Amino acid sequence: MSQPKILIQLDSDPQASTFDGVVAVDAGVEHLFRHQAVGPDAVQDLVYGAMFTRGVEDLRNTAVFVGGSNVAAGEALLKKVRECFFGPMRVSVMLDANGANTTAAAAVLAAARHVDLKNAKALVLAATGPVGSRAVRLLAREGASVRVASRGLARAEATCVSIREAVDGATLTAVATDTPESLRAAVADVNVVIAAGAAGVELLSDEDRRSCATLVTAIDLNAVPPVGLAGIEVTDKAVVRDGVACYGAIGVGGTKMKIHKAAIRRLFESNDLVLDAEEIFEIGRELEG
Amino acid sequence: MSQPKILIQLDSDPQASTFDGVVAVDAGVEHLFRHQAVGPDAVQDLVYGAMFTRGVEDLRNTAVFVGGSNVAAGEALLKKVRECFFGPMRVSVMLDANGANTTAAAAVLAAARHVDLKNAKALVLAATGPVGSRAVRLLAREGASVRVASRGLARAEATCVSIREAVDGATLTAVATDTPESLRAAVADVNVVIAAGAAGVELLSDEDRRSCATLVTAIDLNAVPPVGLAGIEVTDKAVVRDGVACYGAIGVGGTKMKIHKAAIRRLFESNDLVLDAEEIFEIGRELEG
Amino acid sequence: MSQPKILIQLDSDPQASTFDGVVAVDAGVEHLFRHQAVGPDAVQDLVYGAMFTRGVEDLRNTAVFVGGSNVAAGEALLKKVRECFFGPMRVSVMLDANGANTTAAAAVLAAARHVDLKNAKALVLAATGPVGSRAVRLLAREGASVRVASRGLARAEATCVSIREAVDGATLTAVATDTPESLRAAVADVNVVIAAGAAGVELLSDEDRRSCATLVTAIDLNAVPPVGLAGIEVTDKAVVRDGVACYGAIGVGGTKMKIHKAAIRRLFESNDLVLDAEEIFEIGRELEG
Repeated sequence: MSQPKILIQLDSDPQASTFDGVVAVDAGVEHLFRHQAVGPDAVQDLVYGAMFTRGVEDLRNTAVFVGGSNVAAGEALLKKVRECFFGPMRVSVMLDANGANTTAAAAVLAAARHVDLKNAKALVLAATGPVGSRAVRLLAREGASVRVASRGLARAEATCVSIREAVDGATLTAVATDTPESLRAAVADVNVVIAAGAAGVELLSDEDRRSCATLVTAIDLNAVPPVGLAGIEVTDKAVVRDGVACYGAIGVGGTKMKIHKAAIRRLFESNDLVLDAEEIFEIGRELEG
Repeated sequence: MSQPKILIQLDSDPQASTFDGVVAVDAGVEHLFRHQAVGPDAVQDLVYGAMFTRGVEDLRNTAVFVGGSNVAAGEALLKKVRECFFGPMRVSVMLDANGANTTAAAAVLAAARHVDLKNAKALVLAATGPVGSRAVRLLAREGASVRVASRGLARAEATCVSIREAVDGATLTAVATDTPESLRAAVADVNVVIAAGAAGVELLSDEDRRSCATLVTAIDLNAVPPVGLAGIEVTDKAVVRDGVACYGAIGVGGTKMKIHKAAIRRLFESNDLVLDAEEIFEIGRELEG
Repeated sequence: MSQPKILIQLDSDPQASTFDGVVAVDAGVEHLFRHQAVGPDAVQDLVYGAMFTRGVEDLRNTAVFVGGSNVAAGEALLKKVRECFFGPMRVSVMLDANGANTTAAAAVLAAARHVDLKNAKALVLAATGPVGSRAVRLLAREGASVRVASRGLARAEATCVSIREAVDGATLTAVATDTPESLRAAVADVNVVIAAGAAGVELLSDEDRRSCATLVTAIDLNAVPPVGLAGIEVTDKAVVRDGVACYGAIGVGGTKMKIHKAAIRRLFESNDLVLDAEEIFEIGRELEG
């Protein structure tokens, strides 16, 4: 007898995300166990309940999704989930707290439609946050030379250190973007700009963006006006502005959503997957065809 | 691919209502997302998750139900839900906190089986509570002349003011029912009495009810003995007593339940419905045939 | 129209058990209403919602499962659930907090494969806890003569008193096992030993176990090494060691899981079942064939 697909949603927020719930259902999940206000201490019992109820050959029909708006909290939950597993006793698990993994994957895939990332120079603005640092990781892994920008140089350098540990041979440069001059220098001669800043903060002026003659594509992940890259609309999807292929948050959103659904479906193909930034990016790449 | 019907249950109580859950399932909901202890601040994220996951043409397959035992809290949640919507970005939503809307609709529909509401005189006892004030609204909208009764005149008048704002040309009279004389005067020459009082409080004696020769139908919405209208049984359903068609809470309950289920089904026919007292009453009227 | 099977999961823990959830789904439950942090005061509304939504003839499609890691808390919830019922207005309910009922049933059924319980002498170690006391109840009900062992004689005697109230004609002897001598005496000439102790506590040495020449079967319900009965492996399932049929926690676990699923399925065959230790044991016996 084929067993129903069960997804255990672990959410660190006081109310479990309906967004993640709807996507799970639309990806074919038959029973969704939604858990909210989940802290690290609660993980073991919840994951053991998934591991010890079905036979090993059926564990592919049970999976775990880690969400919530706090990415660091989600990472802590994922770590605890993985610590529960031993030998073949495991279930597949996906991390997409605050949509960080699917968003970063969709942004880098958008860039890859326009430039050969292996030979590209990229600038990631607000690169020290969860989405920005994931975009850097994915770009570096593809062979791009990446400028890791933050208002403070120390934070940018810390992000570089942690990404170098994760990605062998990453070509990263920490840059501070705390003055108009440093910002203009950061954007000089890059082919890709990705802005991963907080809602409503402009990170690059229209003029500064146009000052970069080598720019091929510009991707803004902020959905709340003012956008991070001035002059881009949130609905832009490969809209050419001043010769640059522009994407806004909603323009990237369709790809993000497809990746999210495909990743959920993938969870139920085997019981041993851990879908974090890189694995989710690979799923997105397969969708690009 | 047709998408599963998802209902997001927003409940202000510490445990989400199983009553509302069972009715939702029996009305064809395929995935029920149950949220409890929901305050106004939690609404936006929960509703955005419903609005931004499916395409506009598929939003009819996602809906929101606002329940909980506290009707004022439910009204506050409904207000927040509606504030999330813009343009075609919306999902259908129903309010039935404490069953107030479906109960009031069922009570007024029961009355309409026996009198022509347009020309009727009605008395609503305990009319300032959530069920009572909804019954007044529905009766007034049908053209009945309604006596709005409360133990305190000020509260009755306040209810009249707010209902006149909602119902154009409502014919309402505030009456205090704090003495035997005022109660006997309130019931004089009415055709309909609806009692919407608290559990276990008798609002009208058998003798006072019989004193009214014009009475055609008497409806008591209190399920816990002693009933609000003495002499009526909770299971009465159009039982004729002293020439009056009597209904008890359970006698009205079957209609209430049918309305509740039909309203849930209706939610999934389009993505732009707001089902509050009046809309739910109309659904009930269609069921009466 | 056949109505979907709804199981209402009442769990006293801060997060509802995923273990109980997966088993419910695998037993055919179509909609699982999961409630966590449930205290006795919350029970009435939750159970009334189950009782008053479907017609009496359909109430067999709604049931209640009481779980949670705290067995005493689960017993208190079950008591409240039962107090809600009247006449035909009831739904079937099962108690398996901390798996105590299904575990005790599986242990006693394992013993019954090797000895005729009617004529057997049994020793239950750590018999005053929820699993141990249930094993004593089931053994006594089958006619076995049972030694009820605890480190303190007073607690063992209290357990005997409460079990004698539940099981007519139970043959019980309270024994303290606080010294090597008393432990050796307790195990002397028994045919069955069941160990229901806390995780990681050895209750009987290999030597003491071998000292008992009449022993036929030894069952250890502790899954975390060191096991309660030294020399037994947690995966033992009728493994013969020194002429004794040995079972470890995982060896008993397959039967426990089958009983749990069968009991959930049974809940939906009528609306009037209360499945506690004895009823769950009977379901297990039918499965043994």
